[in-house]
Amino acid sequence: MSESSLPGSTKALLFDVFGTVVDWRNSIEREMKKFADTQSGEANFDGGNLASGKLADQDWQQFALDWRALYQPAMEKIREGDRGYVKLDLLHRENLQLLLSDYGLEDCDDASLEYINTVWHRLRPWADTLPGMYRLKRKFILGSLSNGNIALMVNMARYSGIPWDAILGSEPTRGYKPQAHVYLDSVEMLGLKPDQCLMVAAHNDDLHAARSLGLQTAYVNRPDEYGSAQTVDKQAEDDWDMVCESMTELADELGC
Amino acid sequence: MSESSLPGSTKALLFDVFGTVVDWRNSIEREMKKFADTQSGEANFDGGNLASGKLADQDWQQFALDWRALYQPAMEKIREGDRGYVKLDLLHRENLQLLLSDYGLEDCDDASLEYINTVWHRLRPWADTLPGMYRLKRKFILGSLSNGNIALMVNMARYSGIPWDAILGSEPTRGYKPQAHVYLDSVEMLGLKPDQCLMVAAHNDDLHAARSLGLQTAYVNRPDEYGSAQTVDKQAEDDWDMVCESMTELADELGC
Repeated sequence: MSESSLPGSTKALLFDVFGTVVDWRNSIEREMKKFADTQSGEANFDGGNLASGKLADQDWQQFALDWRALYQPAMEKIREGDRGYVKLDLLHRENLQLLLSDYGLEDCDDASLEYINTVWHRLRPWADTLPGMYRLKRKFILGSLSNGNIALMVNMARYSGIPWDAILGSEPTRGYKPQAHVYLDSVEMLGLKPDQCLMVAAHNDDLHAARSLGLQTAYVNRPDEYGSAQTVDKQAEDDWDMVCESMTELADELGC
Repeated sequence: MSESSLPGSTKALLFDVFGTVVDWRNSIEREMKKFADTQSGEANFDGGNLASGKLADQDWQQFALDWRALYQPAMEKIREGDRGYVKLDLLHRENLQLLLSDYGLEDCDDASLEYINTVWHRLRPWADTLPGMYRLKRKFILGSLSNGNIALMVNMARYSGIPWDAILGSEPTRGYKPQAHVYLDSVEMLGLKPDQCLMVAAHNDDLHAARSLGLQTAYVNRPDEYGSAQTVDKQAEDDWDMVCESMTELADELGC
């Protein structure tokens, strides 16, 4: 595709984060293996009644997928107005507590639970993410437009080196994508119009919502986000303004 | 002073911006001189009936001071509940319109007015600001806790290279300092407690508000913020947790 498919007035790139910018599945598996290793013979659990062998036997890849599977239903209650806005950190923690007994973690103390819950603050970018984003930042404002809360985004950015200009999305707008106001208020917070912003996501439904509100759209293909379990978002499913295989290709196409 | 005057649990530095991080007075003077120069013989004004000589004669330093003098009264209406929250960009624009006829700008077209109003997006840091902040960022989360709106802060950061981790303060919390919730909600958005945050400001009243809410306090002396017109904030007026002459001294004292 050519650079000319986007209007020259594009000022900001707004990114979905989980799956698009960072690889949550492999990051969580790696962090949980590390956590299990550090527990061997240490006193991080109340009473020390959690056998380290129990943690060593767990399938942390499946743990990541199971945890993530509880994400949409938890947000849905808030989108539908059945619950007031709470941060994703809290939803993650509530969802984690549902999984504890399945993964040998039921005797975790509060500090360990908090450590595990903030694994989402320590997700790592895909290999092409930083090389692409640092080039894109020269020309465009880079904003997160994620369902992650501010602390989660800030800590992840510091951990991984993601060069945000602004943390937008869920918490500043007090909602959860694909609620329209999350996109529109984020755009407005930059003092821009929707057509001056390019939504960058690995998820067709996110881009569909953004396009319906007047934003430009870029699909970055992440067909391995869910590993072998992945059934959706294995390719672009609409004629998005841009379709790329990586953030570096996005930077190429945008002339950065 | 020694490093031990702050608790080791300090996680974030929250900065006042106008006057503390950037030198608004000299920046505005410089930008307005540049603007006046570019107007000579050009068609940026409706009907071209604004003589360039008129702009050349203006005291842009005084213009900056006069514009800034309208800042507190405009915010006060919002703090007192007489007006709903609007962004500082709008307050700046309303205040600018009050000054136009005094400075030969009454025939400005809309594009020129917008250009002048966004001079606040192009303020430059004090000489020690970036050298200090880049060192501080290695160890601490750096957040803006300013009355400036998000677009203003983002554009200024990109223009000047200020390495924020998060834009907090006025717009995300929908208020104006020294309203308590502006400080407390900013702290909470980082997932922190007030005593884990250090408020950095060149203004004693800002630090007074922050301290009363449990934040740590660092005074950075900017005795030339208002030039010869400066009557307040020429020195620390309380026993702030830290008192520095520059951001680099602050970095020194914090062991960065």
